[in-house]
Amino acid sequence: MSTITAVEIHDLRFPTSLTADGSDAMNQDGDYSAAYVILLTDESVNGEPLRGHGFTFTIGRGNELCAAAAAQYARHLVGRELDDLVGDLGGAYRMLASDSQLRWLGPEKGVVHLAMAAVMNALWDLAARRAGKPVWRYLVELPTETLVDALDLRYLSDEITRDEAIEMLRATEPLRAGRLADLRVAGGYPCYTTSAGWLGYDDEKMVRLLNRAVADGYRHVKLKVGRDLDEDRRRVALARETVGPDVKLMIDANQMWDVPQAIDWVNALAEFDLYWVEEPTSPDDVLGHAAIRAEVAPIGIATGEHGMNRVLFKQLLQAEAIDYCQIDSARMASINEILAVYLMAAKRGIPVCPHAGGVGLCELVQHLSIFDYIALTGTTESRVTEYVDHLHEHFADPCVVEGARYVVPSRPGYSAEILPATIEEFRFPDGTYWRAALS
Amino acid sequence: MSTITAVEIHDLRFPTSLTADGSDAMNQDGDYSAAYVILLTDESVNGEPLRGHGFTFTIGRGNELCAAAAAQYARHLVGRELDDLVGDLGGAYRMLASDSQLRWLGPEKGVVHLAMAAVMNALWDLAARRAGKPVWRYLVELPTETLVDALDLRYLSDEITRDEAIEMLRATEPLRAGRLADLRVAGGYPCYTTSAGWLGYDDEKMVRLLNRAVADGYRHVKLKVGRDLDEDRRRVALARETVGPDVKLMIDANQMWDVPQAIDWVNALAEFDLYWVEEPTSPDDVLGHAAIRAEVAPIGIATGEHGMNRVLFKQLLQAEAIDYCQIDSARMASINEILAVYLMAAKRGIPVCPHAGGVGLCELVQHLSIFDYIALTGTTESRVTEYVDHLHEHFADPCVVEGARYVVPSRPGYSAEILPATIEEFRFPDGTYWRAALS
Repeated sequence: MSTITAVEIHDLRFPTSLTADGSDAMNQDGDYSAAYVILLTDESVNGEPLRGHGFTFTIGRGNELCAAAAAQYARHLVGRELDDLVGDLGGAYRMLASDSQLRWLGPEKGVVHLAMAAVMNALWDLAARRAGKPVWRYLVELPTETLVDALDLRYLSDEITRDEAIEMLRATEPLRAGRLADLRVAGGYPCYTTSAGWLGYDDEKMVRLLNRAVADGYRHVKLKVGRDLDEDRRRVALARETVGPDVKLMIDANQMWDVPQAIDWVNALAEFDLYWVEEPTSPDDVLGHAAIRAEVAPIGIATGEHGMNRVLFKQLLQAEAIDYCQIDSARMASINEILAVYLMAAKRGIPVCPHAGGVGLCELVQHLSIFDYIALTGTTESRVTEYVDHLHEHFADPCVVEGARYVVPSRPGYSAEILPATIEEFRFPDGTYWRAALS
Repeated sequence: MSTITAVEIHDLRFPTSLTADGSDAMNQDGDYSAAYVILLTDESVNGEPLRGHGFTFTIGRGNELCAAAAAQYARHLVGRELDDLVGDLGGAYRMLASDSQLRWLGPEKGVVHLAMAAVMNALWDLAARRAGKPVWRYLVELPTETLVDALDLRYLSDEITRDEAIEMLRATEPLRAGRLADLRVAGGYPCYTTSAGWLGYDDEKMVRLLNRAVADGYRHVKLKVGRDLDEDRRRVALARETVGPDVKLMIDANQMWDVPQAIDWVNALAEFDLYWVEEPTSPDDVLGHAAIRAEVAPIGIATGEHGMNRVLFKQLLQAEAIDYCQIDSARMASINEILAVYLMAAKRGIPVCPHAGGVGLCELVQHLSIFDYIALTGTTESRVTEYVDHLHEHFADPCVVEGARYVVPSRPGYSAEILPATIEEFRFPDGTYWRAALS
């Protein structure tokens, strides 16, 4: 009987604040970070030791809190049999979620939820590696009832039931092989780029990167806004002029505005033909998003990267508050919770356009978008997944983007493994980079 | 110039799980805990060193995460001048809240928000001690504009503006002396007891404690429910029979139900004449609470002890989802955020009935309820503050409840100071109690 024998947890931080990569109106000096979990086992696959890799993403200070919380959750897994854990991924999730002392600290939000994401991401990675499949394929090929029973549908039955979830997934079973073939023919899953639009970049850099994005085939680009309206009008005008009328232009305010202010600010930018406005106000404000949506249409409302859990997304859908649902693969408690949101969104006809970027989020979300296409919605209409070209070099199986599409990944797992040399260099505070930087 | 010279932080845990005190359907084995912050200064008041005491409340594991996060926030205060901090408590709050790396871990929720509560509670305690006043009086006597500018009104302007807040508070200025006199004549602020109704107590203990509560003058008692409907019907019937028809009986489900289940379960208990049902579902589910409220009226809906921040409460009010607003003094980021909720609730005519119990929550909320009476609403109609008779012996200035009323506290500060002997005994894991228990 194979078991999880131990857990390794690393607080990894990358000094992105030095180059203003990732800068926006709310977050001006983030050091992109990962609380990285490795589940060790006494099993081997093809002569290699079987391990599960997962992480949550933060922007620096406090990453150690997520690492410490992940250690608390992970200890529930040590000594457990792999057959039991992988055979009942819903049971494993509930075991962690029902640690009521840790639950009190959320519940189901903030540091403890980020930590659960890290641990459960590692367990899904492990399950898929053990099956020799990339996560998207592992999910597509799980028996439908097994998959649905892995999901956290608690508090959702007024929006979606277990039976409805099963029915939705069963309906696509005969279509999946064809959809996969179509996706491969298309070159993969479409994405957009945020790499040109960070608030800390000057005009020259923004224009150069926008031109490169269009040349690379991107049909959607995103700019950060929200610090100064006059400055935003100038930058958005310049961006629209640069990319021309046919490229979709999105803006992202990173929660800077109150509700009335959001309405005024967005409408003051409307002439530049915006596709969506992202995080116009507090990510918790379901009714506020609904109010903004009603006043800025036809500009779409996008939010979710700070969406704390499935209950928030249920309400965003029920209140008709969003046009684009931006789940985060490291903020919600992994696939167990995220696919519940995908099902609710599909039922309502709202496209899921995952948040990515950060450290490794692109690596994760490509699997989710591909699952969505193959096993749920079968369309990329109005769907586009974020892509940011930072920090992929630290991953053993980095995502590949070609022609503004995520190429379907083929290696087993969740593409979450970080290279040993990266751990050596960027572990905080004792990696070689940080020892030099802090001395 | 006096400054904050250092910070002490203690992870204190009390082994309440041994006696099932605090047990409910969600939390069966909590060890009531406090992440306790002491701000040290180089100033003295009446020959005693001036210090600020604050804490957040948790139920055990993970308390160390709150303590660690509090240390991160508190370091922003060390070296700052007291005149600046106390003279601009809104500025101090914003300095902590705008630490964007920590903010990412919420935002404004979970561990980092609990930690901000602990630190800001300590700063308010310090401010009131420096003025030689209990916190309720410090708040009542602050100039109205100064008080409003200390509050966090961000994301609230669609519900309440700064000008409205000032107008509401100004209107009570001439009435405050009379209201204080009335409150003293009445014997203090009314409370209810949860001490009889923990789910882990057997019938004999419940009946004995209910009889004692009625004899002590309580007109409101609360029972935990939600594990088994037949068992709940039996216990609630027994409780109603014990207290008679004139005592108000509340039930608390501690988030056990989905929305449809909550409606059925509560209606199955309606014949026992319930005053409110507390936490019927996920604390995040604004629309769910509204749906339940519509279906179980006239039984009131109460929630808020897990209400993560002011944006959630804004929506609970906007959606007409609650009849009783149960703010938590250690989960929201202290008075800066809590009074914003009091103002919104007063504007909507919804009574605030604070959550208390735990460790030290009663000590804090008495100040808030008294402020509400004197400076805001001037009524105790439909208002009753929770009281639980646990762990008060660990406080230097414990709350005093007589005749089911909180006696108006008179000593300077927020009543938050924990005795040195308690720290010695219950600090985790190195206090004398825990060294013995863990060995």
